[in-house]
Amino acid sequence: MQIIRSPQEMHRALKRLKQKGKTVGFVPTMGALHEGHASLLRRARKDHDICVLSIFVNPKQFGPKEDFKKYPRPAKEDMALAKKEKVDIIFYPSAKEMYPPDFLTAVEVEGLSDVLCGQFRPGHFRGVTTVVAKLLNIVSPDEMYLGQKDAQQAVIIKRMVANLNFATTISVCPTIREADGLALSSRNKFLTSAQRSEAANIYRSLKHAAKRINEGEQNAPAIIHDIRSFLRQQTSGRIEYVACVDTQTLAPLKKIRGKALIALAVRFAGTRLIDNMIINVR
Amino acid sequence: MQIIRSPQEMHRALKRLKQKGKTVGFVPTMGALHEGHASLLRRARKDHDICVLSIFVNPKQFGPKEDFKKYPRPAKEDMALAKKEKVDIIFYPSAKEMYPPDFLTAVEVEGLSDVLCGQFRPGHFRGVTTVVAKLLNIVSPDEMYLGQKDAQQAVIIKRMVANLNFATTISVCPTIREADGLALSSRNKFLTSAQRSEAANIYRSLKHAAKRINEGEQNAPAIIHDIRSFLRQQTSGRIEYVACVDTQTLAPLKKIRGKALIALAVRFAGTRLIDNMIINVR
Repeated sequence: MQIIRSPQEMHRALKRLKQKGKTVGFVPTMGALHEGHASLLRRARKDHDICVLSIFVNPKQFGPKEDFKKYPRPAKEDMALAKKEKVDIIFYPSAKEMYPPDFLTAVEVEGLSDVLCGQFRPGHFRGVTTVVAKLLNIVSPDEMYLGQKDAQQAVIIKRMVANLNFATTISVCPTIREADGLALSSRNKFLTSAQRSEAANIYRSLKHAAKRINEGEQNAPAIIHDIRSFLRQQTSGRIEYVACVDTQTLAPLKKIRGKALIALAVRFAGTRLIDNMIINVR
Repeated sequence: MQIIRSPQEMHRALKRLKQKGKTVGFVPTMGALHEGHASLLRRARKDHDICVLSIFVNPKQFGPKEDFKKYPRPAKEDMALAKKEKVDIIFYPSAKEMYPPDFLTAVEVEGLSDVLCGQFRPGHFRGVTTVVAKLLNIVSPDEMYLGQKDAQQAVIIKRMVANLNFATTISVCPTIREADGLALSSRNKFLTSAQRSEAANIYRSLKHAAKRINEGEQNAPAIIHDIRSFLRQQTSGRIEYVACVDTQTLAPLKKIRGKALIALAVRFAGTRLIDNMIINVR
């Protein structure tokens, strides 16, 4: 397992591999790796000759009042997980390397970045698309793997990749959950044990909604109202949003027909949790 | 000479060439090719195995009141020039192919895009960086060639390429001029013959400034004043700006020491001409 810290060295290493005809699968992360990341690495490992992991806590996707400083950085455990999953190359740059003093460039997906999480995290997705554009140029993977847990992020990155003609296929893989349904997240460790028990109700609220939709409810505002009531009754968290939107445009739906994305964010004190479910009404 | 119209087909063609170890030189243009473009194609041809030319009149870099519709599109003559310069692949997409209805992404270099020409053409450089990011992903060249005539464009694209870690070297090549000094431009053909004669004074004003600097003048505002007087006396054009700036940051200089970029724009009725000179005071 090779650890590379500079974009230039990545370019050289990847060029050599490409010239040998190797294909590259890539998993971009902020570290604090868990089974969700591991599932992506296994897909990349299985589908491609070379498995590349990046670990970079990207300052540009955190707001000034957000948890950039306290975001977990367990380097040793991350290395162990990467090794266990047979990662070939870890790209592990410094912030100075990624954002030198003359850094002035931004990549933005307009519209899609301002809704849902974007309403509560201004500039967040601009930071995400900027760093992902950099990583795609640094790694030039054949395929990049993202988790469905960050549904809006996946939609925005897919749009950016299509719009800017990156030669990379984007694969979005299922959310990995704890036994009680809580979506894995590097931020779960910030929950108190009481919050942790309550947090399982986030997924339950989505399953409850899916059940109602399967039973015939097509009215999106009614479903949203239902999820909100459920969360208010079962958790002490503060609801940031609950939304039922088109899976591509993220535009709010009135009636649920075909595919719909139900997404939400709930805040437990300083810890913000997100989850979502794609519903397919036939 | 192969003409390719779709980004997907470009990806396939370039992948095959890269796997054979071929290097690629790339010249992006809006067509209406002249000796300036030809000089770039000859450099690309000389330095690389494969010479790629793109022709695309990019709607996103024209303002609503600018000359997008009347911008020249002499397809037949362009093909003949490309053939003469032994271009291997012309990428010649439609606007629909480049900007499908779901296009929402923009690439921007902040700060550098708002000064000089950017003051008079809001959104212009955002359109340029967006299309060049697309072209770099479509062609993935080893080296891209730009003309020094578009000095600000070259500075902005170099910054974008560095900031976003594109694996492409950017080479900026000298401005090609008519016998009387007028910088070649696809827009020169819009000049009346009276305007055409006057326009030669643009380069003369820069040479006059260079002479004064070589004689010891270091005061940038005095040089700017001089160029403005010269242009007012020798042409009927309307001066948009005359600036003396740092070659990397485009920040205005007070005193000329080391390298300086002197750049200007003059408008002859509907025709906007730009020119520049890099001065190196040792």
